[in-house]
Amino acid sequence: MILYGRNPVLEAIRGRRAVLRAWVARERDIAALPADLDATIVSAEEIERLCSSPDHQGLACEAGDYPYSEANELLAADDALLVAIDEVQDPRNLGAICRSAECAGASGVVMPERRSAQITPTVCRASAGAVEHLAIARVRNLADYLGHAKQAGAWIYGADAKAAVPYTQPDYRGRVVLVLGSEGKGLRKRVADSCDQLVSVPIKGRIDSLNVSAVAAVLLYEAVRQRTN
Amino acid sequence: MILYGRNPVLEAIRGRRAVLRAWVARERDIAALPADLDATIVSAEEIERLCSSPDHQGLACEAGDYPYSEANELLAADDALLVAIDEVQDPRNLGAICRSAECAGASGVVMPERRSAQITPTVCRASAGAVEHLAIARVRNLADYLGHAKQAGAWIYGADAKAAVPYTQPDYRGRVVLVLGSEGKGLRKRVADSCDQLVSVPIKGRIDSLNVSAVAAVLLYEAVRQRTN
Repeated sequence: MILYGRNPVLEAIRGRRAVLRAWVARERDIAALPADLDATIVSAEEIERLCSSPDHQGLACEAGDYPYSEANELLAADDALLVAIDEVQDPRNLGAICRSAECAGASGVVMPERRSAQITPTVCRASAGAVEHLAIARVRNLADYLGHAKQAGAWIYGADAKAAVPYTQPDYRGRVVLVLGSEGKGLRKRVADSCDQLVSVPIKGRIDSLNVSAVAAVLLYEAVRQRTN
Repeated sequence: MILYGRNPVLEAIRGRRAVLRAWVARERDIAALPADLDATIVSAEEIERLCSSPDHQGLACEAGDYPYSEANELLAADDALLVAIDEVQDPRNLGAICRSAECAGASGVVMPERRSAQITPTVCRASAGAVEHLAIARVRNLADYLGHAKQAGAWIYGADAKAAVPYTQPDYRGRVVLVLGSEGKGLRKRVADSCDQLVSVPIKGRIDSLNVSAVAAVLLYEAVRQRTN
């Protein structure tokens, strides 16, 4: 696939997948690329044509398929911290969640094969290239996966704006899965039923919900805070 | 200005500014609008032409200018919680920060008159309409404003990815201003020098920074957490 944008291209090069060739709009940007990478100077218009987005910052590359991980392997560590994403369809939100998960040192992200955004170049761009260093796995059925994670010793916390339990109450040490629902609709019933506890980030204003990527950042860093103390 | 998108239009109607007329693409959406609002059913293409964005969800309205607040008034409460934004230029990030600030019950957002994104319809959309209920003030010089806030008894915490002090260390009760810098460049020197303390959200992955709106959400909810306990 054609990745675009400065961080997505540079992190793909630093990351796990093959980068086959690159295109740059400014000659000086070649200096940021490995000397052995086939890089061509082309017009910004040509890069926009290649990646179908104006948001390329003069840099694009052809990379191999996204290297998805095995979902079960993400639970291996006894302090595994996972984010499970149920039907998040906005690629910007998915990318933003992945960026926060990578920065928080999460073990990985799990999402359903269907009805969720996939790891497209838009998601790579929105994640600032974080997806290149993050384990992301797809599962056929997220509720079944959460059941499996529970049997593997994980505690499953679902974010639900209506939950009575504040997100600061649980103990997030040990194996933990944080579950986030779709924009607007929240968690599906079977997914919510697979959680040990539903927690809410308190809303103190007049609008009724945080963005799902803001919820992800708040929950992830609450886990990091508890694990640091 | 022409606002677009379901939440931006509905929150503008619930909010402080005059809403003069609305356009809807689907007849049933008229039911969501006040009976006395002049609403016209038009094609989706016509709404896109009016608001210059495909992201209108079939709803747009003409609203008065954005009602900016007076910066000094935002410091009145002895537990005022402000977000100061230095040169954040991406309207999506500015909107996301405003949404989290409104949800966290912040007293307001302060930003420079120049070199920052203004409260455009794109920002309103990215904030899901939160800007309609949030006090947002513009100041000529942000460093001067922070000096004034300090004299008014506020503690000023600047987010700096390189700071040695973790963001969880300060006491965020009382009058507090959280200062966020531009994407990429961070805080300008004079703004950083105006802070009482620079704090960082720990980065435990391989990419080097969180999105500025994720930092905002994490800092705001750490303040809420401390103020709740």
